[in-house]
Amino acid sequence: MKKAIVLLSGGLDSATTLFFARAKGYKVHALIFDYGQRHRKEVHAARRLARAAGCDLKVVKIALPWQGSSLLDKKMALPGNRKLDKQEIPSTYVPARNIIFLSFAASYAEAVGAQVIFIGANAVDYSGYPDCRPEFYAAFRKALARGQKVGIEGRALRIETPLIRKTKTQIIRLGLRLGVPYHLTWSCYAGGKRPCGVCDSCRIRTQGFAAIGAKDPFFK
Amino acid sequence: MKKAIVLLSGGLDSATTLFFARAKGYKVHALIFDYGQRHRKEVHAARRLARAAGCDLKVVKIALPWQGSSLLDKKMALPGNRKLDKQEIPSTYVPARNIIFLSFAASYAEAVGAQVIFIGANAVDYSGYPDCRPEFYAAFRKALARGQKVGIEGRALRIETPLIRKTKTQIIRLGLRLGVPYHLTWSCYAGGKRPCGVCDSCRIRTQGFAAIGAKDPFFK
Repeated sequence: MKKAIVLLSGGLDSATTLFFARAKGYKVHALIFDYGQRHRKEVHAARRLARAAGCDLKVVKIALPWQGSSLLDKKMALPGNRKLDKQEIPSTYVPARNIIFLSFAASYAEAVGAQVIFIGANAVDYSGYPDCRPEFYAAFRKALARGQKVGIEGRALRIETPLIRKTKTQIIRLGLRLGVPYHLTWSCYAGGKRPCGVCDSCRIRTQGFAAIGAKDPFFK
Repeated sequence: MKKAIVLLSGGLDSATTLFFARAKGYKVHALIFDYGQRHRKEVHAARRLARAAGCDLKVVKIALPWQGSSLLDKKMALPGNRKLDKQEIPSTYVPARNIIFLSFAASYAEAVGAQVIFIGANAVDYSGYPDCRPEFYAAFRKALARGQKVGIEGRALRIETPLIRKTKTQIIRLGLRLGVPYHLTWSCYAGGKRPCGVCDSCRIRTQGFAAIGAKDPFFK
């Protein structure tokens, strides 16, 4: 059975990606990072999602000894009221975060013999993160092909970003079709008991569900 | 003062790279990883080297929840008697290790405003690691330029590999000129109290010192 690594974050996009990879016939090895994020709840959400998908989940603990992001530093304010369509990089950008995540995924893939890494990156609905753009993934794939044993042996890893060109509404439609248990996901940056409803992450998903007239089970 | 991240391993090459970066006028932020390697002594060596160079050192602890390398798995044998000139990838290859290290360095560089990452990779004397070749570093740099905030802002990080084309003897000559305290380094893979003298790492450095008729202070 062909194997894939799926990077999970516990949120809506990565949950959809997980079920997408499974539907494509991959034996999935899911991976999530506990890196001191405010919203550590996503680790628990990832566990629930992996269980629901019947796949193995590894949690990599990373203690980043530097800051530089409002997602890590509780003294910094989270962006809450800015326009979502403004193409600027928000303070929640964690320096090189997806680069770090992909590196671990590449290591894991090589260790277990997976040929593909799936990541739920999205470049359409607002994110502003440079490491969510297709040109980054193309370049990173080349780096893996040249830097990994499997790469120079002619079995370079693929990086699949099935959601990258989809709107949030299209992602949700796909997910509902795949039976993604969206009630198990966690998307809020703030890390409170209930979703804050005002952070970028909460607002983008609310808008996505509203557009298809569906109820988001995240906001019960 | 211009800043640089230097990836330290506690060994001869990275120590030389550290003093090289310092001699080039950089304020150095050194970085080492505690990733469950057999030869954890290198972390202590890195602390001593950073102190000697008067630079800050961060230790990133990584618990890799997979194996796949004789450098991590004590049940696997270390290669000891193979020919050093044979161009095959040794069992000490850790899947995507330098890729992971560089990703953290890229994050750290962005967080502290460093423009350069120095790594003591070497493609001449035997290593066989794909992530020690110049074409990998060129590709990885492109991925950073596309995936990082500083990249899309036109201040893409540079990756400097000053030793990549040097023989071990040339590296040692350079280091002796720069005053590298080689007695503080640690190069043996085996992780015993004293260097084993037979692993790749021990043998390569022995040959390097022997070639210039100098005594290696590592083997006291």
